[in-house]
Amino acid sequence: MQPGPSNAITDVAGVRVGHVTVIRDEPDPPAGRGIARTGVTAILPGNVSRTSPVRAGAAVLNGAGELTGYLQVSEWGLIETPVYLTSTMAVGRVYDGAVDAAVAVDPTVGVGGVVIPVVGECDDSCLNDARTVQIQAADAGRAVAAAAAGPIPEGCVGAGTGMTLFDWKGGIGTASRFDPDTGATLGVLVLANFGSAADLRIDGVPLTPELVAATEPRQPAGSCIAVVLTDAPLGTAALGRLARRCGLGLARTGSMAHHGSGEIFLTLSTAPVEQPGVPLDGLFQACVEATEEAVVNALWAATDMTGRDGSVFRALPHEPVLELLRAAGRLS
Amino acid sequence: MQPGPSNAITDVAGVRVGHVTVIRDEPDPPAGRGIARTGVTAILPGNVSRTSPVRAGAAVLNGAGELTGYLQVSEWGLIETPVYLTSTMAVGRVYDGAVDAAVAVDPTVGVGGVVIPVVGECDDSCLNDARTVQIQAADAGRAVAAAAAGPIPEGCVGAGTGMTLFDWKGGIGTASRFDPDTGATLGVLVLANFGSAADLRIDGVPLTPELVAATEPRQPAGSCIAVVLTDAPLGTAALGRLARRCGLGLARTGSMAHHGSGEIFLTLSTAPVEQPGVPLDGLFQACVEATEEAVVNALWAATDMTGRDGSVFRALPHEPVLELLRAAGRLS
Amino acid sequence: MQPGPSNAITDVAGVRVGHVTVIRDEPDPPAGRGIARTGVTAILPGNVSRTSPVRAGAAVLNGAGELTGYLQVSEWGLIETPVYLTSTMAVGRVYDGAVDAAVAVDPTVGVGGVVIPVVGECDDSCLNDARTVQIQAADAGRAVAAAAAGPIPEGCVGAGTGMTLFDWKGGIGTASRFDPDTGATLGVLVLANFGSAADLRIDGVPLTPELVAATEPRQPAGSCIAVVLTDAPLGTAALGRLARRCGLGLARTGSMAHHGSGEIFLTLSTAPVEQPGVPLDGLFQACVEATEEAVVNALWAATDMTGRDGSVFRALPHEPVLELLRAAGRLS
Amino acid sequence: MQPGPSNAITDVAGVRVGHVTVIRDEPDPPAGRGIARTGVTAILPGNVSRTSPVRAGAAVLNGAGELTGYLQVSEWGLIETPVYLTSTMAVGRVYDGAVDAAVAVDPTVGVGGVVIPVVGECDDSCLNDARTVQIQAADAGRAVAAAAAGPIPEGCVGAGTGMTLFDWKGGIGTASRFDPDTGATLGVLVLANFGSAADLRIDGVPLTPELVAATEPRQPAGSCIAVVLTDAPLGTAALGRLARRCGLGLARTGSMAHHGSGEIFLTLSTAPVEQPGVPLDGLFQACVEATEEAVVNALWAATDMTGRDGSVFRALPHEPVLELLRAAGRLS
Repeated sequence: MQPGPSNAITDVAGVRVGHVTVIRDEPDPPAGRGIARTGVTAILPGNVSRTSPVRAGAAVLNGAGELTGYLQVSEWGLIETPVYLTSTMAVGRVYDGAVDAAVAVDPTVGVGGVVIPVVGECDDSCLNDARTVQIQAADAGRAVAAAAAGPIPEGCVGAGTGMTLFDWKGGIGTASRFDPDTGATLGVLVLANFGSAADLRIDGVPLTPELVAATEPRQPAGSCIAVVLTDAPLGTAALGRLARRCGLGLARTGSMAHHGSGEIFLTLSTAPVEQPGVPLDGLFQACVEATEEAVVNALWAATDMTGRDGSVFRALPHEPVLELLRAAGRLS
Repeated sequence: MQPGPSNAITDVAGVRVGHVTVIRDEPDPPAGRGIARTGVTAILPGNVSRTSPVRAGAAVLNGAGELTGYLQVSEWGLIETPVYLTSTMAVGRVYDGAVDAAVAVDPTVGVGGVVIPVVGECDDSCLNDARTVQIQAADAGRAVAAAAAGPIPEGCVGAGTGMTLFDWKGGIGTASRFDPDTGATLGVLVLANFGSAADLRIDGVPLTPELVAATEPRQPAGSCIAVVLTDAPLGTAALGRLARRCGLGLARTGSMAHHGSGEIFLTLSTAPVEQPGVPLDGLFQACVEATEEAVVNALWAATDMTGRDGSVFRALPHEPVLELLRAAGRLS
Repeated sequence: MQPGPSNAITDVAGVRVGHVTVIRDEPDPPAGRGIARTGVTAILPGNVSRTSPVRAGAAVLNGAGELTGYLQVSEWGLIETPVYLTSTMAVGRVYDGAVDAAVAVDPTVGVGGVVIPVVGECDDSCLNDARTVQIQAADAGRAVAAAAAGPIPEGCVGAGTGMTLFDWKGGIGTASRFDPDTGATLGVLVLANFGSAADLRIDGVPLTPELVAATEPRQPAGSCIAVVLTDAPLGTAALGRLARRCGLGLARTGSMAHHGSGEIFLTLSTAPVEQPGVPLDGLFQACVEATEEAVVNALWAATDMTGRDGSVFRALPHEPVLELLRAAGRLS
Repeated sequence: MQPGPSNAITDVAGVRVGHVTVIRDEPDPPAGRGIARTGVTAILPGNVSRTSPVRAGAAVLNGAGELTGYLQVSEWGLIETPVYLTSTMAVGRVYDGAVDAAVAVDPTVGVGGVVIPVVGECDDSCLNDARTVQIQAADAGRAVAAAAAGPIPEGCVGAGTGMTLFDWKGGIGTASRFDPDTGATLGVLVLANFGSAADLRIDGVPLTPELVAATEPRQPAGSCIAVVLTDAPLGTAALGRLARRCGLGLARTGSMAHHGSGEIFLTLSTAPVEQPGVPLDGLFQACVEATEEAVVNALWAATDMTGRDGSVFRALPHEPVLELLRAAGRLS
């Protein structure tokens, strides 16, 4: 299947993404706030608010993680705020800032009803001093304010700043596909923070033992939040089914969905009205392919990073991997 | 079945409950913070921390609500923090304060791994100015610090301060039962905020039309979080099954689990080691009965309250209801 | 809420119900087939076939039971055959007969695709010799052929023939409600086979200790399949949510959803096209009320029955119960 | 990870597998029964009966299929009969035969309680005349009687006789892994009937366009039942989590879990007593790897087959595929 023009979740019309990246080197508390390698990413499926909700579905492959709003998505098939991604222990701050942002844009919030913001997380405490919450509530609104269409920064940005992936540096990745069956575009953005180097497969090709040995083995626990946007006019039941396909994309990269991992998937449709009977197989394939590629793109875009206690995660080196892919006949 | 000595969730040995009640009458923003009728309730199943987690199960009857940590409970069957209850749009603040509290008590948090606090909510915006989040992050720790065993305040306290119930004033309620089959005690605490007066049943007896007419009809949406504690040595699968029985108790009071409602149930076992093959039918009955009674106790303990924009919710009047129960032969 | 003209699931236009009742007193095998107190009930939501499927939802309160087709309903929100109810160990025979019936009416079955019949069960082995499967595959087709609109037999008929309920004789019950919010009719049919006499509540009123003592205490395990039909134009997500409300109706009759019980609920919409945004609260209430009443109607319609090994289940005596209801002020 | 001695599900001690293969070429009905390419496979996790149940878990990736007993597994975490696999519309017959088999081995069945047999299916109607159910109830007992330990036939045998896979001939496949973390063996058996040739990946390597073109494109709908056995002492919650990993293994072969497909997974533990705290990551990896390889083994073992209406499915040719794997550096 073919990607969209930016090969990004923003290829779905109206979708915008904004990052707030927090990198800081201060003394340990109480003198300072320590080492920050973290951030917030906001995904806006066009306008979204309590009075203008967006149809949604969700699925969990392994649930050692958090996505606030998950229960409401499962029940109503709707979200009423942008989607926020951040560091695990900053979820409360971002939720709080998301409430502020919702109050600011919609005068009915808190009067005609309340909102439950959608905030997902991965654990960046390998690189980030997590005992001090490095995010401020206002960072949520800043990420929304920064949101833009078009190509979006990947790798060590926003919520992905401190994330690690197959023992390499990870973070934010995105990809998109056009489904000729429905004429719809589908885009995926992942916050990718999981896996062991020995398990990594890039387009089906494993790393050499030498490349694996170049990483330090870590606890394989980690997580991956995937957010899927499409302009296909799916209803909530179809969106829930689509969400499960993200796990197939992760599997192709080598995910085992470890015990300590949170593989949580959220799907959104920007089409104003749902239609029954939309054929799904093309969209399922688009979701599998775009999720797989988004993870690889997160690896590819990441750069070396040193974090708390001198911990270092290196970027996956491009040239040896390209060589491997060439040798396997996967590059023309 | 017989209740325990306090007819409260604290009849389960080691369990403590603490409330922070926030009642405030200030000018509208920006001059002040407006009208606060809200709070935080913390439930401590004995010691609980990242390094000393507690076995848990969960279930949802209608999911228009939030319980952070739900996904982790579903996956791992464990909680790693106390259980916090509060107002919907204060969940972020309480989550943030819960992180602080977890960092304070466990030096491994943020180093050896992170925690996902367990925070549930109902919407108190009928009485509480919700556009201004009236809770502070530190209120989470204050509720924990206030936690005590023995009889616990019910009605308009803690998270229950601004809640309404069957068009009357509601809030926090609790009850317990002793299960002779297993020798276990089971206690329930509800944050009860749902229903229409015409639907209310007390021990099976509906209100008179005159009593129903004494309330103002409202939007029936609302929510009910139920937290169940037991010292029965249940594993996570059995705890998940037990959680579903809370819905049967709510049904006996007249709950329809409305579209806009969040009926979310969490069960916890304080027994240090799980045992397979614990007989469940007595515990199921205990859960149904205690949940039903906890809702009635929330009504019974509540007092009249005036809130934002002059909105008034009256306490269910005791004498006419006792008269009804006597006439129906339900009181000796 | 008001019931429809027959107070039956057949109040939903186009719905038909057929029973095959199998009562037989033969010598024990191998000389004969023993004692049969069993049957098959078929529910037809208008025309239904592989090429003319019907939208469906499902929910489980306690899953110690079977409803074939449950997974397909959860995934597709569709059924492709009538709904069949029978005795637990006869499910295979009825499934087989349902395949025959599907092949007979639709030339595409087995060529353009296959069908998974929908067959639910309760355990009638208290009265029925279950070691010999007393049902024949052809009984499925016979139940379909017997299906009719209008008032339908209740109590000891069809699949309900050998069922027991709150230690009394149970079986098939039905009720309906008209929802003024949507102008829709909703009907429920239960195959009711659960509970202990001490738990029974009729319109909130428990039996006297004398009535309870008139039954023999049994194992409380049992089951209840509820099938809900409506002409409201619900989609599959809404139908799944509706299905969960059957449990609230059971709870009002005294169900604890025992460990050994199969409370499994199926909802179907006869409206040809789904519509988003149908208000659900009235339909939820209709479902709760009709489920509760259908259980009571199953008790009310049942008659005394003697079964295998001389086991006797008596019908709930009407006059003492009416007296109780009058004393409680529940009858005018 | 290393496979066990037979690289089969039977590497788990006590596990036996039996096939009944039904191949028949008769005139079309009514003169004969037409073309049969079908069968039954029985998997016995050691002794299993109502009085000697086996701990189980289950998961669904896409639910357009059937596994009877699924609800009971989800509720109780137990199976009480062997696991049977067959053709979709033969599920009733096999269920019926499984009841007979259960009655025969356990005198309490139908007296002290009933059993719900576990029967899974895929649709073999591409090759098999499915409008005539080609299986007899007694074939269930015959498959059990044929069950043996040690290496087991794969490909076009038992329930796999008429199945197709990635547009090639498919059927039964099996593989096993030894998990050094727990010292446990884990084996997988798949009934594999899904996918499009263009999607197939063997150890990450796609087919050449020439090989893809050698197949006829078909409807991609299909299904895959995976049954996992392990001697690790897992409880039901852990078994449910393990079951989800089968989907990751399927994904690595190229499964998109199409709309019309039934990816249903069942996990069983033969350890007599469950133990909490068994580390899962090694078992998860074993499950992913063994599921992936079991699918490939089903392809590898299958042979060309002609079925109804002259339909032909060819076996995946070995030599070109080995050549591809060599070229990609995946074979030493």
